[in-house]
Amino acid sequence: MIDIFEIAQNAKNAYLKTMNLDVEIKNQALSAIAKKIEQNKDEIFAANQKDLENASIMLKEGKINQATYNRLKINENKINDLITGLNDLIKLDDPVNKVLWQKELDEDLILKKIATPIGVIGVIFEARPDCFIQIASLLIKSGNCGILKGGSEANNTNALFADLVNSALDEINYPKNAINLIYSREDIKTMLSLDEYISLIIPRGSNSLVKFIKENTKIPVLGHASGICHIFVDENAKYENVKNIIIDAKTQYPSACNAVETLLIHKEWNYINQLKKDLIVARIEIVENPLDYAHEYSDTILSIKIVDNLNEAIGHINKFGSGHTDSILSEDNENIEKFMNLVDSACVFSNCSTRFSDGFRFGFGAEVGISTNKTHARGPVGLEGLTIYKYKLFGKNQIVAPYAQGEKSFRHKFI
Amino acid sequence: MIDIFEIAQNAKNAYLKTMNLDVEIKNQALSAIAKKIEQNKDEIFAANQKDLENASIMLKEGKINQATYNRLKINENKINDLITGLNDLIKLDDPVNKVLWQKELDEDLILKKIATPIGVIGVIFEARPDCFIQIASLLIKSGNCGILKGGSEANNTNALFADLVNSALDEINYPKNAINLIYSREDIKTMLSLDEYISLIIPRGSNSLVKFIKENTKIPVLGHASGICHIFVDENAKYENVKNIIIDAKTQYPSACNAVETLLIHKEWNYINQLKKDLIVARIEIVENPLDYAHEYSDTILSIKIVDNLNEAIGHINKFGSGHTDSILSEDNENIEKFMNLVDSACVFSNCSTRFSDGFRFGFGAEVGISTNKTHARGPVGLEGLTIYKYKLFGKNQIVAPYAQGEKSFRHKFI
Repeated sequence: MIDIFEIAQNAKNAYLKTMNLDVEIKNQALSAIAKKIEQNKDEIFAANQKDLENASIMLKEGKINQATYNRLKINENKINDLITGLNDLIKLDDPVNKVLWQKELDEDLILKKIATPIGVIGVIFEARPDCFIQIASLLIKSGNCGILKGGSEANNTNALFADLVNSALDEINYPKNAINLIYSREDIKTMLSLDEYISLIIPRGSNSLVKFIKENTKIPVLGHASGICHIFVDENAKYENVKNIIIDAKTQYPSACNAVETLLIHKEWNYINQLKKDLIVARIEIVENPLDYAHEYSDTILSIKIVDNLNEAIGHINKFGSGHTDSILSEDNENIEKFMNLVDSACVFSNCSTRFSDGFRFGFGAEVGISTNKTHARGPVGLEGLTIYKYKLFGKNQIVAPYAQGEKSFRHKFI
Repeated sequence: MIDIFEIAQNAKNAYLKTMNLDVEIKNQALSAIAKKIEQNKDEIFAANQKDLENASIMLKEGKINQATYNRLKINENKINDLITGLNDLIKLDDPVNKVLWQKELDEDLILKKIATPIGVIGVIFEARPDCFIQIASLLIKSGNCGILKGGSEANNTNALFADLVNSALDEINYPKNAINLIYSREDIKTMLSLDEYISLIIPRGSNSLVKFIKENTKIPVLGHASGICHIFVDENAKYENVKNIIIDAKTQYPSACNAVETLLIHKEWNYINQLKKDLIVARIEIVENPLDYAHEYSDTILSIKIVDNLNEAIGHINKFGSGHTDSILSEDNENIEKFMNLVDSACVFSNCSTRFSDGFRFGFGAEVGISTNKTHARGPVGLEGLTIYKYKLFGKNQIVAPYAQGEKSFRHKFI
């Protein structure tokens, strides 16, 4: 039996070493993992095949759906994507030990705000087993340690990935126990209680999973419960642009959290009926006046609401949106500015598809998830979102008393 | 009866306006509050007198202690400090709408990471009623809204402060319901359930309060449960410096969370006995080999442990410390660097007193508290810690499909 308590304790000890590793060692680790994956393709396909066989029975029994089954499969393309992803991550700057700012508090009393890793991070993710490698590699590059729980449908593939990662890390003498895989729902429950060792939980899954986790832990939780994304079509928006962007935002990957769910159209826009016709041609099902504007379709279904003006659109989004990604299509710069300032979402776009809301597209290499939290990290979370900071104060034997008594005063000058 | 649900809802609506206010308006608000306080000194002293009279009965009955009673008092000095604090805050840059970085994803596709406020913040603080003004002013300058709960001993003073703040805000047409005061423990319980409206809870109080809050809310909590701060005296540290810094860190304000609790001394340091004698002269009680190294004395009591080397000191701090503030006194730059990199605390100092760990001393104007969290904000939390960010993406009608199909590729260039 796996002792989660022991795993967490060992991961915390590993973190006390990984938190200050040279970037060269972290990059060596990523490179060793890429090599292991390349060298063990056949083993990966074999382990994945076992998962697929089990899953096809579950599919027939109705226990999982076709989309879950499809996401399970690891093929040559996915292997290549993983290797490319690892090599991209190697090229990115070390997110740790950056000086965020420095300040002279007084003569010879220098305060530096320095980026650091966070600690041990628990990540719970769904069926796609390639996530294991992406998450592990982001944690390694950011100096964090992790306890990962994958979808049980992918247990064989995940277990092999975990073995490959750990044997790659062992080869380069990376601190032991940095990356851990756990398997059961019971293990998640135990993990949620270990706030002494685990600093952050990232759930990547259904609304109900995220809700369950938030209700059952004192550990900070980073993630998004739903992606209710909007596009507002302003009075003067050009027809072709609107049509292209909406079809992309709805159909390019309908089950993604950054797909558009609700279209808000200014009542004076001249092409409302033409757009509806073209969306139907693009096989989008239109729902006018839906009962629930906060429902995530995750399918080629789109709510449409006609609004009187920009203010009504902003109000609607702040009321029904999930603070994920919202876009304005407009030729009016003042309206664009107002929309982007007053819509209280992680990502506010103008004249482009909501589907750009993604760690890879933002240039973060990859993402551990997209956050709709209002604290720590918002939007796609890559390396930067996996760091925090510490304050280093370099003195020359100063004490506080003379400052408190008014004999000395601070300079507080950024340098 | 106060309806906390309504207060939270109104505060959320106020936030949708304050989140994008010009800094001039926020500074006008702070200036108007300073004027109100100046003009209503006598009323403040009278309200405070009522609290002091009630508290003196509670003191006799043993319901509060002398320290709590002392912290209640508002005198001319405290009024002046509050006004100075408000004027200092006016001088600080707007923490909101700063461009943190910008990046060209592709031609005419510009991503900007922009600082924003967080939302409605619930702050629970203890007896010192001047905290109300400090916290309210930090929330205003950072564009946030607040629901504040003070110590019940200070109800009269807090209520008057809340009235003064709100009448000042009304005079300059600041969005209504931005700053709210609530009174009872029951109200706190209700507040903790309103995660739809409240984005962050900051408890400034006892360990048990912080623990209670973390166990009873899904809202992120920012704060510190305890301040177990260490000073490590290295082999080569100079005697006079060590003596001055330790006496300052322990006696300058013994009940502060940044006061030192444990002294770790390298076994080869030559002045161990001399130091003990001098600390006793400075009225510090020394505890050698205490049963509990994780106990916060909040008094002029100091644990002392002799350690074999730097590694043992670092290990001790990471095991027993609370991740608050730890300082090394040393003449060896390599040891200083190692200590500051490997001690996993919010504030790591070299050759100065732990008492510098403070928002005012760090030049933040003031602080809403000191965080030992590993996420969002660490150490003294001022304006910067009260912000988060949004991503603004400015496009020219780009869609994702051609990038996904490999027809177009990203530039990802910081600009």
